[in-house]
Amino acid sequence: MHETLTKDHIADLKRLLNDKVIDQDISDDYSHDEMIIYGTRKPDVVVIPSSKEDVSILLSYANKHHLPVIARGAGTGLCGGCVPMSGGILLDMSRMRKILEIDPKTMTATFEPGVILMEAIEKVADAGFLYAPDPGEKSATIGGNVMTNAGGMRAIKYGVTRDHIKGLEVVLADGSIMTLGGKISKNSSGYDLKDLIIGSEGTLAIVTKIIAKIVPRPKLMTSLLIPFNTLKEALEAVPAIMNLEDTATTIEFMEKEVIEDAKIYLGKDFPNGDYNAYLIVSYSGNNKEEIRRMIETCSELVLKKGAIDVFISDTQERQSSIWDARGAFLEAIKNSSSEMDECDVVVDIDKVADFLDFAKNVAERIDIRMRSFGHAGDGNLHIYILKDALSNELWKKKAKDFMDELYDEAEILKGQVSGEHGIGHAKREYLMSAISTSEYELMRKIKLAFDPNNILNPGKVIDIKDRDHR
Amino acid sequence: MHETLTKDHIADLKRLLNDKVIDQDISDDYSHDEMIIYGTRKPDVVVIPSSKEDVSILLSYANKHHLPVIARGAGTGLCGGCVPMSGGILLDMSRMRKILEIDPKTMTATFEPGVILMEAIEKVADAGFLYAPDPGEKSATIGGNVMTNAGGMRAIKYGVTRDHIKGLEVVLADGSIMTLGGKISKNSSGYDLKDLIIGSEGTLAIVTKIIAKIVPRPKLMTSLLIPFNTLKEALEAVPAIMNLEDTATTIEFMEKEVIEDAKIYLGKDFPNGDYNAYLIVSYSGNNKEEIRRMIETCSELVLKKGAIDVFISDTQERQSSIWDARGAFLEAIKNSSSEMDECDVVVDIDKVADFLDFAKNVAERIDIRMRSFGHAGDGNLHIYILKDALSNELWKKKAKDFMDELYDEAEILKGQVSGEHGIGHAKREYLMSAISTSEYELMRKIKLAFDPNNILNPGKVIDIKDRDHR
Repeated sequence: MHETLTKDHIADLKRLLNDKVIDQDISDDYSHDEMIIYGTRKPDVVVIPSSKEDVSILLSYANKHHLPVIARGAGTGLCGGCVPMSGGILLDMSRMRKILEIDPKTMTATFEPGVILMEAIEKVADAGFLYAPDPGEKSATIGGNVMTNAGGMRAIKYGVTRDHIKGLEVVLADGSIMTLGGKISKNSSGYDLKDLIIGSEGTLAIVTKIIAKIVPRPKLMTSLLIPFNTLKEALEAVPAIMNLEDTATTIEFMEKEVIEDAKIYLGKDFPNGDYNAYLIVSYSGNNKEEIRRMIETCSELVLKKGAIDVFISDTQERQSSIWDARGAFLEAIKNSSSEMDECDVVVDIDKVADFLDFAKNVAERIDIRMRSFGHAGDGNLHIYILKDALSNELWKKKAKDFMDELYDEAEILKGQVSGEHGIGHAKREYLMSAISTSEYELMRKIKLAFDPNNILNPGKVIDIKDRDHR
Repeated sequence: MHETLTKDHIADLKRLLNDKVIDQDISDDYSHDEMIIYGTRKPDVVVIPSSKEDVSILLSYANKHHLPVIARGAGTGLCGGCVPMSGGILLDMSRMRKILEIDPKTMTATFEPGVILMEAIEKVADAGFLYAPDPGEKSATIGGNVMTNAGGMRAIKYGVTRDHIKGLEVVLADGSIMTLGGKISKNSSGYDLKDLIIGSEGTLAIVTKIIAKIVPRPKLMTSLLIPFNTLKEALEAVPAIMNLEDTATTIEFMEKEVIEDAKIYLGKDFPNGDYNAYLIVSYSGNNKEEIRRMIETCSELVLKKGAIDVFISDTQERQSSIWDARGAFLEAIKNSSSEMDECDVVVDIDKVADFLDFAKNVAERIDIRMRSFGHAGDGNLHIYILKDALSNELWKKKAKDFMDELYDEAEILKGQVSGEHGIGHAKREYLMSAISTSEYELMRKIKLAFDPNNILNPGKVIDIKDRDHR
């Protein structure tokens, strides 16, 4: 269906986009995301646009010639979403990284897609506001966050990326430019194309401008480090914490072994790190007295629910030591073995303990090392298995067996394949087995409505040939 | 394209659905929504399902025979969305009105679509939680709210209906049943069909179950009634109130003349009702001291911004007198004339004052009586024009001239046609002129992907024949 990229195509692209086209010495970085296990492949050519017009020119050409176009932000994805698995044109969005406006009156920030999350958060904070989504990977781009509907640690109080996107400017496969939503706060004007594009991983359109909601920035935050004898006890306390009158900003869970990995990786101690399992619960607000009351209420509750102690971290230093460790978990686990595979299913928050039990039993039976941590407050687990000294063949077999069982169980529990990392190509098989024929057919038709020649990130999320269709 | 409903069809339906089929003495209620001005038409037959299976049987039959199916909740819509303008089968969802579950652990409530909003709010409150969406019309159904993405007065703090819907069960045009989302809190698993169906006004699928987010219920609420000399001054204070560290629950605006209408309609006085223009600002929380602080901060600010006074309503009685009046505005305005037409555009919150100025000037020039009130905190205006003693012909001409100018201006300001009432058939022309060809084509293809025979509420939101298509 796709044409193979030829020298003529590249010559055309250079004529159209000049020095924004790179076809020599293409960096290896473009061949993978954070999960090399899901495969690597260099693109045939890289295009680095600096405007929506550049994107429009490129797509218009690629569409006419049926050439695959794979958009990439910072390449921090975890499911191969930006890897050009069948070659084609890689669209590196990193040069479109202007913060176009921070508007206090409408409480919106307008970003180009290549803006790095950390910079977005900082610049919005400088203006006195909070860009609330808080995915762990702060070097991701906002565009990448929008394309995977990234979640993060503050979702229980503020919601995920989707909940913060008020408007998008996108370029469609045929090169036409479309604006959806705006700085407005409500909208019931026709089908919600904006939310359809959010989370579509570059398969429906290329985002060139993002209007995001920003909120008043709470002045104070305090975190509680709460040790339990078992992870099960810790997780069973979570629904009750969620029911408290004041909504926590974050409720994360972790186990001793992940903390040990982080200590080694960071070369830093973790305060009060000798217990088996923990919750970290944070509260934010504007008034010391209020925060004190929130902490007291939560502490009383968790102690009743079996917590061994409650360590309050209200200094910058103590908070950093906890959150730096929490932020390093993924890298620390990755660093502890030669290869890893991951699963970020989401289940009902009262099913997290059962699901983790299940996963641990499977890991034990299959005899593979497992680590996990995650967002206890929203049921989003991050479960990792590690290759260690296994042979390639055995590792692949065990990894597949493990994941197959986990996704089957998630389906039984009415969970979903991905809470926040997306599908890419790595999780496509699991998505396919989780959705009904009707759902697949609708997704396929939607893909073809947006991208009739299947040029946008082909083979990601769904493949239009994944099932025999009517 | 559609078949005309015959006696044979009705006999078939009765065979399939027995006494759930009504073809004699069809009530006039089924022929209109709250806006008779947009047209009336009785359905050929009414079906009152009591289960998703009934809906499935009906749609499967209707799809095979190309018969229009128009779903209806409580009929409280404001744009003709549930009116069977070309006849067909009216699907009265009011008997599917069970609250299936209120689950504190996952903080979800599961509703059948025919549950009345007021009952949903009450039952969730009885369980100690808040179902936060707060559209003015409490006798609407939850299903209707989902289908129009109803907004309401608490949107600035809690979001609109969309933000509270975690899962849907729907029946597709061909009768197949599809479940989207669930009790889960995060999801990045394929295209977001759930949000596509929310706000689609019965044109893509029929909703048969709704899983909604509920939140801890704040114990206290206090409202401030804040008079200003002019509406412009009142509205100009709004972005600053939004920037305060504590987010208000509601920020509504109103003018003296609407209050007068409400006083007459309710036969009740309105406290401190003698000023030209007002904001009502509410704060909610769990602690008296906190609320007091919020009120003080807000009061200081608005007095600096030109408020004449701040009247605090912290008793149930005083709050009721304000909110009863606010709740009665629409009916009071409607009651003050023989006919009315309305517009619920949404603009950036810093453009509300300009837009209202514009509308008033147009009304004055065209010489037609206008009333307005609305959600100042989210830029969603409700603007009404009234027929009074005008002849039918003149009324129609003036109404069209007025609305044409308003929607043109909304487009110039990058606003949207509908903030929360939806498109139905009454606003379709304005939606068509507001969206690009690309956007229309995508919506048309999405409609056909879900409903290839165009049986679901045909002619609403978009008509697949609205424009010449490729």
